[in-house]
Amino acid sequence: MSKIKISDKVIGSFRDNWSFCVGTERMGIALQKEYQDTLEFVQKAINFKYIRGHGLFHDDTAIYREYEIDGEMKPFYNFTYIDKIFDSFLERGLKPFVELGFMPSQLASGEQTVFYWKGNVTPPKDYTKWKELIQALIKHFISRYGIEEVLQWPFEVWNEPNLTVFWKDADEAEYFKLYKVSAMAVKEINKDLQVGGPAICGGADYWIKDFLEFCKKENAPIDFVSRHLYSAHMPKVQTHEFCYQDLKEPVEMLNELQSVRQMIDSSPFPHLPFHITEYNTSYNPLNPVHDTCLNAAYLARIISEAGDIVDSFSYWTFSDVFEECDVPRAQFHGGFGLVALNNIPKPTFHMFSFFEQMGKEILHRDENMLVTRKTDGTVTITAWNPVMEKGEHFDKDFSLELNLPKGEYFINRTVVNELHGNPWKTWIHMGRPRFTSKKQVEILRNAALPLVISDRVSCTEDMLLLEFTESKNEVSFFEIIPVTDETDTYYKLDDSMIPGY
Amino acid sequence: MSKIKISDKVIGSFRDNWSFCVGTERMGIALQKEYQDTLEFVQKAINFKYIRGHGLFHDDTAIYREYEIDGEMKPFYNFTYIDKIFDSFLERGLKPFVELGFMPSQLASGEQTVFYWKGNVTPPKDYTKWKELIQALIKHFISRYGIEEVLQWPFEVWNEPNLTVFWKDADEAEYFKLYKVSAMAVKEINKDLQVGGPAICGGADYWIKDFLEFCKKENAPIDFVSRHLYSAHMPKVQTHEFCYQDLKEPVEMLNELQSVRQMIDSSPFPHLPFHITEYNTSYNPLNPVHDTCLNAAYLARIISEAGDIVDSFSYWTFSDVFEECDVPRAQFHGGFGLVALNNIPKPTFHMFSFFEQMGKEILHRDENMLVTRKTDGTVTITAWNPVMEKGEHFDKDFSLELNLPKGEYFINRTVVNELHGNPWKTWIHMGRPRFTSKKQVEILRNAALPLVISDRVSCTEDMLLLEFTESKNEVSFFEIIPVTDETDTYYKLDDSMIPGY
Amino acid sequence: MSKIKISDKVIGSFRDNWSFCVGTERMGIALQKEYQDTLEFVQKAINFKYIRGHGLFHDDTAIYREYEIDGEMKPFYNFTYIDKIFDSFLERGLKPFVELGFMPSQLASGEQTVFYWKGNVTPPKDYTKWKELIQALIKHFISRYGIEEVLQWPFEVWNEPNLTVFWKDADEAEYFKLYKVSAMAVKEINKDLQVGGPAICGGADYWIKDFLEFCKKENAPIDFVSRHLYSAHMPKVQTHEFCYQDLKEPVEMLNELQSVRQMIDSSPFPHLPFHITEYNTSYNPLNPVHDTCLNAAYLARIISEAGDIVDSFSYWTFSDVFEECDVPRAQFHGGFGLVALNNIPKPTFHMFSFFEQMGKEILHRDENMLVTRKTDGTVTITAWNPVMEKGEHFDKDFSLELNLPKGEYFINRTVVNELHGNPWKTWIHMGRPRFTSKKQVEILRNAALPLVISDRVSCTEDMLLLEFTESKNEVSFFEIIPVTDETDTYYKLDDSMIPGY
Amino acid sequence: MSKIKISDKVIGSFRDNWSFCVGTERMGIALQKEYQDTLEFVQKAINFKYIRGHGLFHDDTAIYREYEIDGEMKPFYNFTYIDKIFDSFLERGLKPFVELGFMPSQLASGEQTVFYWKGNVTPPKDYTKWKELIQALIKHFISRYGIEEVLQWPFEVWNEPNLTVFWKDADEAEYFKLYKVSAMAVKEINKDLQVGGPAICGGADYWIKDFLEFCKKENAPIDFVSRHLYSAHMPKVQTHEFCYQDLKEPVEMLNELQSVRQMIDSSPFPHLPFHITEYNTSYNPLNPVHDTCLNAAYLARIISEAGDIVDSFSYWTFSDVFEECDVPRAQFHGGFGLVALNNIPKPTFHMFSFFEQMGKEILHRDENMLVTRKTDGTVTITAWNPVMEKGEHFDKDFSLELNLPKGEYFINRTVVNELHGNPWKTWIHMGRPRFTSKKQVEILRNAALPLVISDRVSCTEDMLLLEFTESKNEVSFFEIIPVTDETDTYYKLDDSMIPGY
Repeated sequence: MSKIKISDKVIGSFRDNWSFCVGTERMGIALQKEYQDTLEFVQKAINFKYIRGHGLFHDDTAIYREYEIDGEMKPFYNFTYIDKIFDSFLERGLKPFVELGFMPSQLASGEQTVFYWKGNVTPPKDYTKWKELIQALIKHFISRYGIEEVLQWPFEVWNEPNLTVFWKDADEAEYFKLYKVSAMAVKEINKDLQVGGPAICGGADYWIKDFLEFCKKENAPIDFVSRHLYSAHMPKVQTHEFCYQDLKEPVEMLNELQSVRQMIDSSPFPHLPFHITEYNTSYNPLNPVHDTCLNAAYLARIISEAGDIVDSFSYWTFSDVFEECDVPRAQFHGGFGLVALNNIPKPTFHMFSFFEQMGKEILHRDENMLVTRKTDGTVTITAWNPVMEKGEHFDKDFSLELNLPKGEYFINRTVVNELHGNPWKTWIHMGRPRFTSKKQVEILRNAALPLVISDRVSCTEDMLLLEFTESKNEVSFFEIIPVTDETDTYYKLDDSMIPGY
Repeated sequence: MSKIKISDKVIGSFRDNWSFCVGTERMGIALQKEYQDTLEFVQKAINFKYIRGHGLFHDDTAIYREYEIDGEMKPFYNFTYIDKIFDSFLERGLKPFVELGFMPSQLASGEQTVFYWKGNVTPPKDYTKWKELIQALIKHFISRYGIEEVLQWPFEVWNEPNLTVFWKDADEAEYFKLYKVSAMAVKEINKDLQVGGPAICGGADYWIKDFLEFCKKENAPIDFVSRHLYSAHMPKVQTHEFCYQDLKEPVEMLNELQSVRQMIDSSPFPHLPFHITEYNTSYNPLNPVHDTCLNAAYLARIISEAGDIVDSFSYWTFSDVFEECDVPRAQFHGGFGLVALNNIPKPTFHMFSFFEQMGKEILHRDENMLVTRKTDGTVTITAWNPVMEKGEHFDKDFSLELNLPKGEYFINRTVVNELHGNPWKTWIHMGRPRFTSKKQVEILRNAALPLVISDRVSCTEDMLLLEFTESKNEVSFFEIIPVTDETDTYYKLDDSMIPGY
Repeated sequence: MSKIKISDKVIGSFRDNWSFCVGTERMGIALQKEYQDTLEFVQKAINFKYIRGHGLFHDDTAIYREYEIDGEMKPFYNFTYIDKIFDSFLERGLKPFVELGFMPSQLASGEQTVFYWKGNVTPPKDYTKWKELIQALIKHFISRYGIEEVLQWPFEVWNEPNLTVFWKDADEAEYFKLYKVSAMAVKEINKDLQVGGPAICGGADYWIKDFLEFCKKENAPIDFVSRHLYSAHMPKVQTHEFCYQDLKEPVEMLNELQSVRQMIDSSPFPHLPFHITEYNTSYNPLNPVHDTCLNAAYLARIISEAGDIVDSFSYWTFSDVFEECDVPRAQFHGGFGLVALNNIPKPTFHMFSFFEQMGKEILHRDENMLVTRKTDGTVTITAWNPVMEKGEHFDKDFSLELNLPKGEYFINRTVVNELHGNPWKTWIHMGRPRFTSKKQVEILRNAALPLVISDRVSCTEDMLLLEFTESKNEVSFFEIIPVTDETDTYYKLDDSMIPGY
Repeated sequence: MSKIKISDKVIGSFRDNWSFCVGTERMGIALQKEYQDTLEFVQKAINFKYIRGHGLFHDDTAIYREYEIDGEMKPFYNFTYIDKIFDSFLERGLKPFVELGFMPSQLASGEQTVFYWKGNVTPPKDYTKWKELIQALIKHFISRYGIEEVLQWPFEVWNEPNLTVFWKDADEAEYFKLYKVSAMAVKEINKDLQVGGPAICGGADYWIKDFLEFCKKENAPIDFVSRHLYSAHMPKVQTHEFCYQDLKEPVEMLNELQSVRQMIDSSPFPHLPFHITEYNTSYNPLNPVHDTCLNAAYLARIISEAGDIVDSFSYWTFSDVFEECDVPRAQFHGGFGLVALNNIPKPTFHMFSFFEQMGKEILHRDENMLVTRKTDGTVTITAWNPVMEKGEHFDKDFSLELNLPKGEYFINRTVVNELHGNPWKTWIHMGRPRFTSKKQVEILRNAALPLVISDRVSCTEDMLLLEFTESKNEVSFFEIIPVTDETDTYYKLDDSMIPGY
């Protein structure tokens, strides 16, 4: 039993850096109806501010083409699809966090591709045409959305160039060249547009050092540093169907962020914003951990604390409408999504929605909970209990003594755990149907609803005692709301006369 | 512990007479947006076929007016509102079960009224004008909706004429006169239109006998008999705020129906359909019992069995958008509605939705449960445990042995009880706010969701054992669905490699 | 032919005082679905900021009741309906312009009523209870919507007290008493809440003088002056079906406003805002003029100019969902609405939507047109030709020379006249069906669409010549948009090869 | 002036074969939101029964994959996307007219592809796997949608195998082999499933003869014959941007159908249904004729008459959301769609919606019009005036003498011509913007509305005279509706007292 005394003193501010941005499958897929329905659903509950994904220049957006005009191949910029896509983001309250990549095949210097959908990862065959492409695009954005809007969109150059799968030979010098050309192309349009990189994945942080020194030395424009963060080990098994991995401890994710932040602080650009433009437990879209309660309970602490270290961290990704490893082969398949196919929310979705309802004033924070107060006096608590071991008997008991004004309080608890808000478990009970019928989808949506329990407690002597248990991999959200009691206004109220009551 | 063996033999057919019709506040109120939103919500879950309410001719529908035309008062029929109202019903899949009443004030012979909204309950001052009104109305319906449609609408003459509050002096002879004029007016338009009465409340069944004899003797057209059914005793307390009453045992409601059915069987019209055009526990819209789990658990047996006795029984009413005792004074106020104000479903709503999902083939039926099979092989169970006594310790344990084909079964249980799907209890925790804020409404809607639990069991030797407990006033719905197991199709599936699983 | 030269010099600012507020039937009717659908439709096209109507305290909102509590009659305030109503306004971007009236029957000193719906127009039987009612209501609003919101709501005391039909005996002294009690009740809650009056109709402007002197002398709080404005003469015919009247010239409406503004300017409160809380051609909801093109063409000049004189003027009313003279007896019946029953827009609706699309910079204004420029360079023109005489041959020809930058211009003209956007005429063709079928409504909605014609013209020598004719009672809206011509970017474009082109 | 006497005698039945089916871009694109929105829009106005498109087995639906399982490549059938797609059709009232093709790349014998989206057009590498694929798919459909539903879906084998671009070497024998394997695969599942071919384009009708003889000789199952129909000549110009072509006379399209029908009649299967599974003016999706009024006026006669010859003819296609020649490069680009990008209907859309409103009883039919009567007595006329010549002065005047019962008639005329309902012309006025802004889209949607004019005429002596002019490439729709005149019911109606009227 953890006994915790919580005073009414504010010990910090809970920043919304965690909801600054969310990840998405490539731009082209954003045209899909289910994608957009899911995004609408997510935004209602979580309200992200930005969205970032790959494939802006991939062939399927059709932005870059070359046609023979009077005997010569000339670029043609087609904005038919990207207009629809960015419109759909903005209509849902999301601004694009623009990733400049991958390479249009007609502009590519090679044929190396990544993913089922074959994103070309080679440098441009012609850097001038690359520059012209970026500038044509941004000019179009400004003409369509206005400069005030576009000035709020960060432009990030490429994705994980430190990996050979994402950038030919992981060639650092070539990336720096690409970066400088791109950054200058952006700034030529308007010097207040924001540009950054190097969007590397973890395990190669010397790139960040090199990159910032390069920017300094070469006078390359730089407005922010970006990097990714995953906590999974190398796969134990990897097939077309599944990837199984172990995870580091949550705290190691926080330590990793601290270490890079310090690297930036001691660089030639010590005050640069630092964006984690992707993070999750596993980096693999076939890892069943993403469908579990553990994923929610594990990441809760990151949501709770990482915003003190980095300017944003973008959950990869909001939806299982995702094709990097081919079209999903089953209702649940280990996809990154907060929401599974057919708009079925996963436990991590609910965990995010809990944090969305937290206050700004932190009253208490530890590795298992965050306690905040909202402007209307409501105290909100998100508590979690991640357990990576097998087996049962991992319940944790908590006893909180909250320093609150005397009075009556309404307690509303919303719970996601192995039994509730866990459609993946119900789907296993069903026999893991790959292509769910309408009836099965309906059952799973009901199974995905969290458990809700209400209660009422008295707070005497300015101390409200809240005792509760978090089961293995449970995440709970408490709202503690002062009661304005109207019971006395009901004339001759007498519940004892109600049959059965 | 009740042990029950359930064979796979069909012992009867579960008729949908229970969902044939639903009651509503007066016609005029059907113009309201919240009313229509609630009706939409109800129809999605329950899918009633007809809807019946008072006030068709009440002044607020404006159907009947008299104007001075060249010095003479002449009737004017205004269908502006009734068209909107009936359109809104039909768009939601509901046909009108037309109640002919109350009296337009310009056609009334007196000033006696009923309800806050002052429905005039006196006979017509001029029976010819009454007849012309009915005929003008029906002709208009036929012109707007087509004769095929209108032939499916029952026309019921007046409401509870055996009570002095609803019919001046409860004058039987005058009612019979009204009935005959009305019925003949209807039949003059088209002899296949359906007309009936006497729409009495309980406690005066000699009216039915008299009525059928009158029809025989006077050759008055008659297509169905109608009556109401409530199980509450006289009020223990009655204020503007509350009515408290005791209830008879559920079985007495069934006995009452049997007795009237026998009365009809031995009348000159032994084969007439018999419609219960209103029923509920209490007949008072300020009785908190309507908001409770007991109301659901109590009526479940009626839903389960009454359809074998009567041709329809119409729950009074679908919504708390209701004004008979003035505009509701609080979020919960003991209203009849399946759904409370602000579209918050009550336990009885869920109980109805459970029965809507039952199959046609009855495998077992007793005073605590109904077991059916659907055409796709799914076995569905609705079980209930009404307890009118005070206090706790009324749990009932059940052990069912279901004779089912060998195999795996997915079990989905949906539960409404004191803790779940019971927004009234949560509202009490909140301090009974009369005029709920948007935040409070959101909390109550979440509190109104039933608990859902899934499981999977093996059925060996053609016997599936299902053990469960029904707590006090709980209603549970079980779906037992044969599993088509696809688990083996996943290559190298190994859940043991998922962290924490 | 009017020849008009229009330079590119801005000669004034077109204020949106005309769209500050719109009128509505009584509060209680705002619960209706069609009312809310129409309001949604209106707001999409016109975007009013406030809404004002009668009947806040009328019995059907149920705000004020008295109940016997322990032998004594005590007030009970019921906010169930008003919360729904104000929520529905705010959700559509409208704030309430709160009219304090009429008298709840349990608080009334007499039985005199106005309208079909019987609004009680007598003083309170007890001014203390009246004060408590106002304060209870405002406190509730503040608790529900927040003080920042409610500070933006003007509170206006009563309606047209200078008429005996609206205020018993049109008793000026009694009104001043009511005003002072009400205003002080408001200010006691928060001194920054805005309160005003006397909400008189035209023809009794000495009330305004008296009223302001009273406020000065009695130290009654006053934040704005309000009055109404109609231009119809006394009825030539008045039945339950129709009211026929002649109209003054439009300019007389403007003169009337000037005269009252000067009266205020020379009062003890010279800088008070002046709100016209109702205006229209006729003050009668059975006058067919409201359905005509004339109504649009006539009022266009008021929209164009009155905002320079008064702080707001509120069109009475947005919808024919209106019951002052009983429930409407026909699809078209001379109602005030911008929109007819069944969501069919009238010509005046389109005229309003034209002005909503005008720019802020006035380039030219006269009695037949307003020419503005928008921030994006588009020039917009609304032109009108009201003709109150009978017969034909009233076309007006215009020749505009617009001083614009050289280049190509796209011209989009939207027209409402006797032939287009005139569903009333089509309804007459149909035989004036009172209760329109769905098919008829569909035809009328199509008939209600304005005519749209596009063209393209060259502007050489900085002069664009625009010649057009306004037929009798036509209102036209022109958008003159500089063309960014992309024609040359299409490779080998040759329209001459398209068959038939 | 054409003078036409039209008696009230029914001379034939207007079949709805023309609305039996509509064409669509490939299955994979049906996941797009705009595609589905447009389909919804089309179905509301036109109500097609079936939908047919290519690409069922194309890689982007992901239906067919091979994975290495324990060292061996095994097929895997993925129905994730096709379920969403067919669900979306059925939800909009459309059944699939299933085209079996093209070849999944992992099942293909070669690498030849067609279209921007690279549909593989080579025979299967393994006919057994092809058969298994078809059977797996149909079994899945039956499991998801029920056999009753799937029995109503025609299965058509491949597309235009007589063209080398669509079938390697246009190899007839290989196609017959594919056909027989496919047809038998279908019938093995259920002999009542419908299968047909050869889906050839025009100009190679000997294939049909050969095909039917093959079926006879080889005992291959055959339930219907299918073929395509386009009336364009070879391109005069063809670039990536445009294709310009001349068109044959409309009557030649009808003659072509007659000739093939006779070929079937004299084949071994004389009573087989004959479906035109694609038709349009031009077969090229970059031909501007599709955007013009001519396209509507030209095809009107085909709609009017072809249903007497063939069992269905399927307009290719409903939407410009279409990628065969790459993602559309401009708002208007000569796409096949009834509806342009951004949901802007073209003239042909309106022409289709006119025919959707025609009656079943033909009163008159010629090369310029169809006159029908509906069950409610309304006479409807669609009239057209296609002109392929350049220039003006092609108006046609018509004078119709309609034999109708004496009385008053309401005439509603809806017109599409060069000036109205022609957004393409407005877009040209705008300077042909490729990527239209929201404001431009709004203007184009308004420009796309047809002109509507209403009138009222008297029919005396059983003869109603209707005189009208059809301008060049105009299509008009007339509704002639008997008036039930209620004018006399309005007490003291006197329009002459309305100002300006």
